[in-house]
Amino acid sequence: MSDEILTRLHAVLLSRKGGDPRASYVASLYDKGIDAILKKVGEEAVETVIAGKDGKPSEVIHEMADLWFHSLVLLAHLDLTPAQVLAELERRFGQSGLTEKAARGEARS
Amino acid sequence: MSDEILTRLHAVLLSRKGGDPRASYVASLYDKGIDAILKKVGEEAVETVIAGKDGKPSEVIHEMADLWFHSLVLLAHLDLTPAQVLAELERRFGQSGLTEKAARGEARS
Amino acid sequence: MSDEILTRLHAVLLSRKGGDPRASYVASLYDKGIDAILKKVGEEAVETVIAGKDGKPSEVIHEMADLWFHSLVLLAHLDLTPAQVLAELERRFGQSGLTEKAARGEARS
Amino acid sequence: MSDEILTRLHAVLLSRKGGDPRASYVASLYDKGIDAILKKVGEEAVETVIAGKDGKPSEVIHEMADLWFHSLVLLAHLDLTPAQVLAELERRFGQSGLTEKAARGEARS
Repeated sequence: MSDEILTRLHAVLLSRKGGDPRASYVASLYDKGIDAILKKVGEEAVETVIAGKDGKPSEVIHEMADLWFHSLVLLAHLDLTPAQVLAELERRFGQSGLTEKAARGEARS
Repeated sequence: MSDEILTRLHAVLLSRKGGDPRASYVASLYDKGIDAILKKVGEEAVETVIAGKDGKPSEVIHEMADLWFHSLVLLAHLDLTPAQVLAELERRFGQSGLTEKAARGEARS
Repeated sequence: MSDEILTRLHAVLLSRKGGDPRASYVASLYDKGIDAILKKVGEEAVETVIAGKDGKPSEVIHEMADLWFHSLVLLAHLDLTPAQVLAELERRFGQSGLTEKAARGEARS
Repeated sequence: MSDEILTRLHAVLLSRKGGDPRASYVASLYDKGIDAILKKVGEEAVETVIAGKDGKPSEVIHEMADLWFHSLVLLAHLDLTPAQVLAELERRFGQSGLTEKAARGEARS
């Protein structure tokens, strides 16, 4: 149930496109452009790493939510969708066997 | 439909715990420990930033899939779940209004 | 001549220890603690990556100066010195031959 | 004395330009191109963050040497010099007073 949140959140983010940068944090990110959005993705990844070292569950969840949130902003800004990322993950894991082997090569990147 | 992939992928990742590090990429990450997993999260974020600058959709999707994949490995390693991250995102966006305002303060972190 | 700047800058940064966080940016970083300093190192690295993709010389110089600046703040906070980092770099490159081969293994890390 | 290492290291890195990618790690980075070099800068920054959280002096020195090393590779690849970065740092800190105030605005970026 709750995992449809990505799709719903994506819809909200799309609706912020062209919005008033002073009224919406997300609209202000779109307005600043790709570099501002990428900086946020990078920053939240660093904060996730720091939280991971501390090992406090609530911090890790919080920072990862920030990381995924800004990932979604990036996708929306580039006219991409979380469904495409999920499909890529699914493709790697196969449709039936979910054999990790098939995914390993990709995951290593 | 496809957005349940996070939950299913999480189950696969959990099943790799205690597996043979030589046979499974994910088991090898668990075996190396938290630092190795955090390095991958950081690396994939950097690769997402680079892909974002290039602006090629397929590259962005690919790198973000890598980023989310290793985010899930981190969660599994710490006995956390993607459902917790999704719940945090949902909490910020409210159950009905999906008002961004409520989420803004959090998203800024 | 100008390359002694790291040593001089380090001395300035040391002098800010225990300073008024409201009067000095560096003192405020020390006051916030290790996480705040590490976040800045991570952020400036991401900005260096973005500047590197743009390829504008002045931007790269600017962001790398920020990265090195916060690297020095980190060293000072941990009671380490840039001389130790430089000595490590020198050690890798040998005292006479500057043979890269000796350094390669380390640089790969 | 030892702080001239950046200048000497830069000269060595320049001499690797056009070298055999199979014989020299640095030549292989130049050969792979800007993305490979930027990934290394990002990776080493993440490793510096992790080392900083652990707080072991030798690890921090080691990872920061890696970070600065790849910073120098980036500069050489872009036909820039460490002297330019040092000059930027010096400029911020003033020629006489080394007043931090003048540098603050810049360092915040």
